[in-house]
Amino acid sequence: MANMRLTLAYDGSDFEGWQAQAGARPARTVQAVLEAALTRLGGQPVAVAAAGRTDAGVHAIGQVVSFEFALEWPAERVQRALNGLLPPDVRVLAAAHASADFHARRSACAKLYRYELDTGPVQLPTRRSLAAHVPWSLAPEPVARVAALYLGRQDFAALRSTGSSVQTSVRTVLRSEVRWYGATLVYEVVADGFLRKMVRSMVGGLIAAGRGQCAPEALSARLAEGDRRRWPAPAAAHGLTLVAVAYDGCREPAPPFAPHSAL
Amino acid sequence: MANMRLTLAYDGSDFEGWQAQAGARPARTVQAVLEAALTRLGGQPVAVAAAGRTDAGVHAIGQVVSFEFALEWPAERVQRALNGLLPPDVRVLAAAHASADFHARRSACAKLYRYELDTGPVQLPTRRSLAAHVPWSLAPEPVARVAALYLGRQDFAALRSTGSSVQTSVRTVLRSEVRWYGATLVYEVVADGFLRKMVRSMVGGLIAAGRGQCAPEALSARLAEGDRRRWPAPAAAHGLTLVAVAYDGCREPAPPFAPHSAL
Repeated sequence: MANMRLTLAYDGSDFEGWQAQAGARPARTVQAVLEAALTRLGGQPVAVAAAGRTDAGVHAIGQVVSFEFALEWPAERVQRALNGLLPPDVRVLAAAHASADFHARRSACAKLYRYELDTGPVQLPTRRSLAAHVPWSLAPEPVARVAALYLGRQDFAALRSTGSSVQTSVRTVLRSEVRWYGATLVYEVVADGFLRKMVRSMVGGLIAAGRGQCAPEALSARLAEGDRRRWPAPAAAHGLTLVAVAYDGCREPAPPFAPHSAL
Repeated sequence: MANMRLTLAYDGSDFEGWQAQAGARPARTVQAVLEAALTRLGGQPVAVAAAGRTDAGVHAIGQVVSFEFALEWPAERVQRALNGLLPPDVRVLAAAHASADFHARRSACAKLYRYELDTGPVQLPTRRSLAAHVPWSLAPEPVARVAALYLGRQDFAALRSTGSSVQTSVRTVLRSEVRWYGATLVYEVVADGFLRKMVRSMVGGLIAAGRGQCAPEALSARLAEGDRRRWPAPAAAHGLTLVAVAYDGCREPAPPFAPHSAL
């Protein structure tokens, strides 16, 4: 058996998220589709671990997975064979053999997520599955101030999802940056780990401040309080993309590939 | 009756092109969908003219249409009402009253098309409906030289589509420009008019030169010869987007909106 590592891209539109689900009705998840292809290729069941367990509708251009594989093939051959078996909405961008102790989730030290949000009365139809849309204008200044609130090591209990079972909600945010391209807001955030729906809740905070519903000071107080019932609702899933994962040391993860569009 | 002008955006993926088609099986075209919405709104049949009759799969972020409309509503009200009636893959970006002699196609003096082409072994799944893909690397230098061949006033008979019935194939290309974003080629071309499949044939020439199948000198000779059977095949429709149309004088048309992605 060889420990392998893949870099994956997927269009999350037609997936019920990353994680394979037990149940009477089999869900179409990226994990289930990938494990089926690997099992077919290797002739025996394969279980994969992913750096980020993305929710339904969330995209990836740099998801990383690891698994023990029976075939002792060159990595490029595994990549080509998988891309022949996988549906067109999942692609293997890179494959490599990894050291025995490499684990896509446990070995990760930082992840980069990007959220694209089109603002204003009408969204371009070509962007409707890759970017979220709000029909309002957002004021850039309070948006930038709220993005800065997220920086550093702090307890993100106010942004955790209902029913989340993780031990601690303390995370370190290394980068939290808003850029504007006309009426499109692009938010990029790097952290050592993320709670479930954390990025979408962060964007919910940006929207609430940009619309003037909550002052940045009020959001700062609510973040410190840690009561998730008082935090703005998470933004829509389809604006979110897992861009890259870092493993060696804790350098900023570099995007492995171009984003959704070149422009 | 008032003469009106709309700026339209659409995702061409699920349309059989712009033009309404007669026939037993009604095709889903942008024109048919728009005319149905306008007819429902105005209570009597409406016929629209478009600046560019885009093919199946081709997108638009700045298509312009004109029509005579029975309702004397403010333009913004027409826009909102139409966006309520149209399917999500077509949006009205702007609506305005126009002078009586304005005609979306006949009054147009220049159009800007953009073609996005991802090159290399694997395409990001999130880009598969908005950009075409070739699995090769293209050499930038011959690509740029072929793009320059298209500039100026000349006979584009070599690039015209089979069965095309237009009188003359002389067109003036005002801009023909390739930019690279990593492995993504973005080609932008402005002309006073385009033959059917002309932009896709231009991109076919860029690809043939970039792969080393045809030298730029050979393509230059074939362009002068005007024999379309010797010209490389047109590139795939779904990489093409009608970006903008110019009307006043012959200024370069300005993109009315952000492109597919902000990045």
